[in-house]
Amino acid sequence: MSKKVSESVINRLPRYYRYLTELDSAGIERISSRELSRRMNITASQIRQDLNCFGGFGQQGYGYNIKFLKEHIEKILGLDRGFKAILIGAGNMGQTFAINTKFESRGFKLIGIFDSDPQKYGMQIGEHKVLAYNTVKDFIAENKPQMAIIAVPKKAAENVANALISYGIKAFMNFSNTEISLPGDVTVENVHLSDSLMRLSYKLAEKQDFATEALDECEA
Amino acid sequence: MSKKVSESVINRLPRYYRYLTELDSAGIERISSRELSRRMNITASQIRQDLNCFGGFGQQGYGYNIKFLKEHIEKILGLDRGFKAILIGAGNMGQTFAINTKFESRGFKLIGIFDSDPQKYGMQIGEHKVLAYNTVKDFIAENKPQMAIIAVPKKAAENVANALISYGIKAFMNFSNTEISLPGDVTVENVHLSDSLMRLSYKLAEKQDFATEALDECEA
Repeated sequence: MSKKVSESVINRLPRYYRYLTELDSAGIERISSRELSRRMNITASQIRQDLNCFGGFGQQGYGYNIKFLKEHIEKILGLDRGFKAILIGAGNMGQTFAINTKFESRGFKLIGIFDSDPQKYGMQIGEHKVLAYNTVKDFIAENKPQMAIIAVPKKAAENVANALISYGIKAFMNFSNTEISLPGDVTVENVHLSDSLMRLSYKLAEKQDFATEALDECEA
Repeated sequence: MSKKVSESVINRLPRYYRYLTELDSAGIERISSRELSRRMNITASQIRQDLNCFGGFGQQGYGYNIKFLKEHIEKILGLDRGFKAILIGAGNMGQTFAINTKFESRGFKLIGIFDSDPQKYGMQIGEHKVLAYNTVKDFIAENKPQMAIIAVPKKAAENVANALISYGIKAFMNFSNTEISLPGDVTVENVHLSDSLMRLSYKLAEKQDFATEALDECEA
């Protein structure tokens, strides 16, 4: 029986995965929750609570087996399922994403990049040549990708998403700087780079105020 | 007296801000928590709880005054403080960020873009010409930006951050695909595009399993 995991745990899982991957690559075999806490800047009790969600891998006094924990989180994240992705939009954002995200090492396969601008057809991005967007329907029917990354202009995003849904795609990562809302059985991760900037601003503002004001706690 | 706000509320604030900005631009004056809930796909009770953190702006039966709430969140996020930012790294990621993030409309001012590659000096990105990285110290002393966006290769990130700290920068947004950890009085937002991809994978995997398995709740 699996467990349904809360949104905030899901949000932390990729981070655990990245840290564990780095530790594993460095040849480290075990780590205590205290040491992981120090590196990740998450409390040790939060770490124990998070990992207990998946069955609790730590042994009192022995810490976590890094490789084992990493492989388990890999499975939880579905990175062992070989999901295939296509990228729509070969502009700045699409190129950056295709080049900077190590698809293979994260368990995904990027199998095609599409754009509607004929000037971009054939352009090389990493190991891919940009394909014509009007061939995407046939491509999906033939290659059955499970997810699409949308990096098209804001005003085109919803149309592209709806077309792809009609071709069978049910999971989207959306970089178009707008929130697309889609039917209930479709999953969307809307990515807004400026959100991080706003969080940073919040923290800066908080620091400016901290010197002069008393603070209450407010949890929601 | 201000309130200290939990991490998960802070994470939702930029999203509230974006929605309220769009509603305000569309000329809408009031919205109920139920309607906001429908649009944002957050429960109405979560919305009320979040916004209560800041004093509770809703009037029973009248909903929220959008402009008032938006301006208040703007203040909480520090977007009214005119923070100035510099961008280090004019590669793919840096360019994408500079072009796609509407600095001005989010209350920041991007005041300079720097790169250490002489081939990029003078290159136009939006309204900026790329400056030589070896002039950044003087630039900071003269213009006093509060934050730096780091979009340099992974192996250079920590060095760049430490140099900038020694020049007086205390807040960073880090796009270099590595987590930089810095002294306690320095704030960092590490941005990993592949984290969103992993979360999407999780949700896809969960959906695949949902058909066949019973699920428990696990909150941490």
